Amino acid sequence: KSIKMAAARTLRIGLIPGDGIGREVIPAGRRILESLPSSLNLKFSFVDLDAGYETFQKTGTALPDKTVDTLKKECDGALFGAVSSPSTKVAGYSSPIVALRKKLDLYANVRPVKTTAGNSNGKPIDLVIVRENTEDLYVKEERTIEGPNGKVAEAIKRISEHASFRISNIAGEIALRRQNIRSASPATSTRDQAMVTITHKSNVLSQTDGLFRETARRALAAEKFSSVFVEEQIVDSMVYKLFRQPEFYDVIVAPNLYGDILSDGAAALVGSLGLVPSANVGDAFAIGEPCHGSAPDIEGQGISNPIATIRSVALMLEFLGEEKAAAQIYAAVDGNLDAAQFLTPDMGGKATTQQVLDDVLKRL
Amino acid sequence: KSIKMAAARTLRIGLIPGDGIGREVIPAGRRILESLPSSLNLKFSFVDLDAGYETFQKTGTALPDKTVDTLKKECDGALFGAVSSPSTKVAGYSSPIVALRKKLDLYANVRPVKTTAGNSNGKPIDLVIVRENTEDLYVKEERTIEGPNGKVAEAIKRISEHASFRISNIAGEIALRRQNIRSASPATSTRDQAMVTITHKSNVLSQTDGLFRETARRALAAEKFSSVFVEEQIVDSMVYKLFRQPEFYDVIVAPNLYGDILSDGAAALVGSLGLVPSANVGDAFAIGEPCHGSAPDIEGQGISNPIATIRSVALMLEFLGEEKAAAQIYAAVDGNLDAAQFLTPDMGGKATTQQVLDDVLKRL
Ligand SMILES: CC(C)[C@H](C(=O)O)[C@@H](O)C(=O)O
Ligand SMILES: CC(C)[C@H](C(=O)O)[C@@H](O)C(=O)O
Repeated sequence: KSIKMAAARTLRIGLIPGDGIGREVIPAGRRILESLPSSLNLKFSFVDLDAGYETFQKTGTALPDKTVDTLKKECDGALFGAVSSPSTKVAGYSSPIVALRKKLDLYANVRPVKTTAGNSNGKPIDLVIVRENTEDLYVKEERTIEGPNGKVAEAIKRISEHASFRISNIAGEIALRRQNIRSASPATSTRDQAMVTITHKSNVLSQTDGLFRETARRALAAEKFSSVFVEEQIVDSMVYKLFRQPEFYDVIVAPNLYGDILSDGAAALVGSLGLVPSANVGDAFAIGEPCHGSAPDIEGQGISNPIATIRSVALMLEFLGEEKAAAQIYAAVDGNLDAAQFLTPDMGGKATTQQVLDDVLKRL
Repeated sequence: KSIKMAAARTLRIGLIPGDGIGREVIPAGRRILESLPSSLNLKFSFVDLDAGYETFQKTGTALPDKTVDTLKKECDGALFGAVSSPSTKVAGYSSPIVALRKKLDLYANVRPVKTTAGNSNGKPIDLVIVRENTEDLYVKEERTIEGPNGKVAEAIKRISEHASFRISNIAGEIALRRQNIRSASPATSTRDQAMVTITHKSNVLSQTDGLFRETARRALAAEKFSSVFVEEQIVDSMVYKLFRQPEFYDVIVAPNLYGDILSDGAAALVGSLGLVPSANVGDAFAIGEPCHGSAPDIEGQGISNPIATIRSVALMLEFLGEEKAAAQIYAAVDGNLDAAQFLTPDMGGKATTQQVLDDVLKRL
């Protein structure tokens, strides 16, 4: 008789390549999922979905309803590539990823930035930026009036207690999870205590950023976070410190726009945006998304770095509860970076997207 | 008979030390002005003025009317130290420097960031951030409502064509002035063409940042700027590029908040906030202000770095039309940094504020 096996979990993943190099890296992400060791007992099915500037040019909308509906009704998670922004204002166009984050209530944008043994300038960096993903200036409520001295435009920055609480709570959870992973291998860890740094500009924005700060303090004062050290930084000073002593930071929680800026800044610390993943996380859904853009300058040359996407695949799996699969992907990526034999040009290497992918697959 | 001399120009300077190390560095700034070579034919008179958190605690206002009136009626320029922010929200307190910028219509915040031969990690950086200083989220129009899910706070981000135009225009003027200075000593210059980089986030904020971007493009398209190369960067990407290739940048023009963040980021590139000056510039007034804060951690130890303030003195003089005096101060500071004999602890040295000041004075 056959040996009894646990039924495999099947995850349905939406693939949204978007524009530019998004179309080169998302297929690499798919290959990773298809090539996971069978011992993980995971199966995947895929559905190709449209979004982006080209979709806008063809159909008049950058985010077709079908894409949103399919994600909501059929999928467990998704991978999103990148979208081009038009170089001058185009009526009716607006970023599909910003809309998607809101429509699926993916309230946390999680952006880990980490050096590996082979990819560091001496200082080991291992931090995560946890960016609020649904409000702040991203509510995009703007208006323009014609004044006596010309046009005056206004935008709303909205900060709610609700969104500030849940983002701070998940930041705390992530800090705890990281601490658990570290205590499993104490030898390689340099950090004793979990830490969350709250970023804001409440010295100027006493109500909005003041609310973010207070609420974050309250969320992180919960009993379950008693082992987490909580501190705060004004956003300008945060950027300064991020560059002066990045090794000091663990989890950084920030309102949407500061999180956007900080994560690009942190990416610069590890050498290339092409290495930095993100996940847009909601209560029961996650979209993996490389932090880089559509990179029109290198599009079509087959040299875009797939690492950010591959790590985003792992991050998505982590938030879908598949931490073991995630750990294996991270380890394969670290192996590729440490060996430094197959690196794309953004990393100073000469490898193609395909060669890097093959090298990671070999290590999986 | 006596030789005929040009009448000395007398400038009256308001001194606003503020809180913390502001009180240690502003006296150093005064000493520099008092010690300028007599060949410059400049005289100074001083008036001490109050502002800051301690002033708020004593008088209930962080920026007394008397300070504003005296600056407006009596002074040609001023030096501002730093102010403490209360660590939790204090009703009625708000930043006096933000208020001062608006009350005196000091619409440009000019923040040069520069390495010297002795103070660089290889890449020579010589850039200026020109930050709009009167609007954006700094209008501080906020409100909070109690919603069904808790509090919701909103702030207005205001961008006007008027303010965007004049800040872009002065950014262009600064680019031209820098080009002139470079052509006077072509041997030491590595840059051929003046450049202005417009920073914005118009891919999300199409109206507000879109207006900034369009207006900046228009201002910089003026005939007088035909020798200036104009480009643009989305703010997150700007932070990334600033760290990856800072040597590429010349003049960066940005709305208020991005300028605030970018200038702290740029400061990290030159090793210490203690080196970075700023000037708050209006049509007929300039306030020199070191970019650092009140630094409660080192207050009272006599080890705060006076360089940011000394350079701010030079910058103030530059915008008051005294470019020659400014150049002499910059040269004395470069001398101090290149010799690296008297450096404060933030620079890895052991010198006191007084020793650094004395060394700069010696070189003046
Ligand atoms: C493309 C843009 C709208 C987006 C953002 O600002 O969120 C990007 O910068 C990111 O970080 O994912
Ligand atoms: C103290 C604070 C209000 C101020 C600002 O945000 O402008 C400071 O950060 C600066 O850069 O001068």
